[in-house]
Amino acid sequence: MDKPAKRLAILGSTGSIGRQTLEIVESFSEKYKVLGLAGGRNTELLIKQVKRFRPVLAYSAIELELPSSTNFATMEEIASHPEVDLVVIATSGKEGLAPTLAAIHAGKNIALANKEVLVMAGEIITREAKKHKATIIPIDSEHSAIWQCLQGEISGISRVILTASGGPFYQLTKKQLAKVTVEDALKHPTWEMGRKITVDSATLMNKGLEVIEAHWLFSLPFDKIDVVLHPQSIVHSLVEFIDGSVKAQLSLPDMRLPIQYALSYPERLENPRLPRLDMTKTHLIFKRIDRSRFPCLQLALEAGKRGGTYPAALCAADEIAVSLFLDNQINFLKIGEIIDKTLSLHKGIATPTLEDILATDKWARETALKLAHEENKC
Amino acid sequence: MDKPAKRLAILGSTGSIGRQTLEIVESFSEKYKVLGLAGGRNTELLIKQVKRFRPVLAYSAIELELPSSTNFATMEEIASHPEVDLVVIATSGKEGLAPTLAAIHAGKNIALANKEVLVMAGEIITREAKKHKATIIPIDSEHSAIWQCLQGEISGISRVILTASGGPFYQLTKKQLAKVTVEDALKHPTWEMGRKITVDSATLMNKGLEVIEAHWLFSLPFDKIDVVLHPQSIVHSLVEFIDGSVKAQLSLPDMRLPIQYALSYPERLENPRLPRLDMTKTHLIFKRIDRSRFPCLQLALEAGKRGGTYPAALCAADEIAVSLFLDNQINFLKIGEIIDKTLSLHKGIATPTLEDILATDKWARETALKLAHEENKC
Repeated sequence: MDKPAKRLAILGSTGSIGRQTLEIVESFSEKYKVLGLAGGRNTELLIKQVKRFRPVLAYSAIELELPSSTNFATMEEIASHPEVDLVVIATSGKEGLAPTLAAIHAGKNIALANKEVLVMAGEIITREAKKHKATIIPIDSEHSAIWQCLQGEISGISRVILTASGGPFYQLTKKQLAKVTVEDALKHPTWEMGRKITVDSATLMNKGLEVIEAHWLFSLPFDKIDVVLHPQSIVHSLVEFIDGSVKAQLSLPDMRLPIQYALSYPERLENPRLPRLDMTKTHLIFKRIDRSRFPCLQLALEAGKRGGTYPAALCAADEIAVSLFLDNQINFLKIGEIIDKTLSLHKGIATPTLEDILATDKWARETALKLAHEENKC
Repeated sequence: MDKPAKRLAILGSTGSIGRQTLEIVESFSEKYKVLGLAGGRNTELLIKQVKRFRPVLAYSAIELELPSSTNFATMEEIASHPEVDLVVIATSGKEGLAPTLAAIHAGKNIALANKEVLVMAGEIITREAKKHKATIIPIDSEHSAIWQCLQGEISGISRVILTASGGPFYQLTKKQLAKVTVEDALKHPTWEMGRKITVDSATLMNKGLEVIEAHWLFSLPFDKIDVVLHPQSIVHSLVEFIDGSVKAQLSLPDMRLPIQYALSYPERLENPRLPRLDMTKTHLIFKRIDRSRFPCLQLALEAGKRGGTYPAALCAADEIAVSLFLDNQINFLKIGEIIDKTLSLHKGIATPTLEDILATDKWARETALKLAHEENKC
């Protein structure tokens, strides 16, 4: 007998990861059923998705009229609906925090794309997930790679090695970096992603956030998490085991693969729509990252090691700084400077509650914004 | 409580793999106990090993005096000794056949380095192993890589990709290949191995034998086994899963790693003596193999696909041809020619018994030798 369909709640369904998740669901309509959808400001697309997938529950950040078969619900209600098997957290920033916790408290398994959830509140999230036996399956390609490499391994990890494409600017000097435009920053050499994460890739902040994410996801100290430059984005990450053996996961850069794996885990599904790697034409380069040219990576690693509310302050300051850069209000190098100054003003709390984290988020946003305005006045 | 020591029988203990196996055993003296050793013609080393490891049983191809605590036994007796947990088959050629079968019939787990065992009698070996619940753990670095990549995977394999260093000659033209010396052929660019296997690497026969080995070990049809040139010998092989995700196993070329993994499987052991890969200095190239310049690979693939006694005839003819080359009696290109002619004279048996396989071996050796002498007369 065939297994019953896995019932999904997809939060952030109108974003890049959400749309690709629904593409996978469409490819395997007998395997997945969408019980809940939550969208942001793109109500037109959300309505289309609701009509197509007929979820029981839907949430929209903006009021909208739903078909009669779908009831309005909050993201927390959708994430903890008793019939949901897997909650896909494809929201962005701190948005995903409360629904992820609601899903965990309801004992749901989680497919996590919203890395800030773990960066901001990793201690709370992993502690609660353990307590409620909720498995967090990563969607980020790097963490999915590590997750895949760890399957079936019963012994210790020596270290994990996250690969970084280096973004569009990894060969530029500091002088050149000061002059890059928004358009330049949005031209990622290997991945097609949202605007904010694309800029985070160019500053390597994204890689720093991923290190913090890996720290929580795989219970690893920071000195066991390395980052290596790999411009081709084919090897998505590697794990070195205690005997020195290294496993890597490879594929052409396409987020549908880690999304599909998170949905089908622990199984794999045949999908001819996913591109195949031709190993006879593959050339893989790995290099050390020059951290002096990418201060955001360093700031993230420091915030991660300090722990407490520092990573939340980092995320919030980064979000403000990147949005100012995208609005042409500050230059590229200012992103790191604003984050650095915000963090240096932050009075951290060592073991914060969720309220502390949200208060830090608010404080860091205001502080970063103020710092940027002061700079612009000078 | 600590686990009791794994009790080993090591057949072929004086060869390259056997010696490295004992090196691992020495590094983990509390984890392994040597119950049986079997050596070939290097009796001096065998006596040393017997004195050092004090096995209950020992076998030598040449008569020798054993310490009183060690009894002489046949390889079959050692392999099936009731107290042995794991039998390491590090013999070469057809030597390993009977002891492997004896170990399987006694329900032992096997760490297999002697690839001819599976190449010559894959159908019998895998059928009997299944029947007697004997696990065959590969030691060959390529198959160990695939084995490692398959851990924890519950869904289908799309294909496996064996990597080939290409040996010392992969950039030579056919004209240049005709003139290579024994000394040239024994200079392997990345691996240090025995003489016969080093020549087999130069002809790519070794890779062909590995394809046949993979066919049996992983129950894969030949069209799901690819070979790709990878001159660095860092990626030891890859597995592509049905969703397009590829896993690879990497390490510096050092046979002690796959040997140790076969001994410790399913665990891994921390071993500071094993070299570590520095990913920041790694550059990995993969290319298509030009099969026209390496007829031995093609001959092996054809023999593998024809099945029955053909792979046994291939192994035997190759052993003769390589030994003639090593004795400077034939040139490098003649190796393939002699094997080709032997195979074309062979009258195959579709589902051979062990006796048929051994008869084929005898016939192919005589035939290859005769063909070589006839050629040399011309």
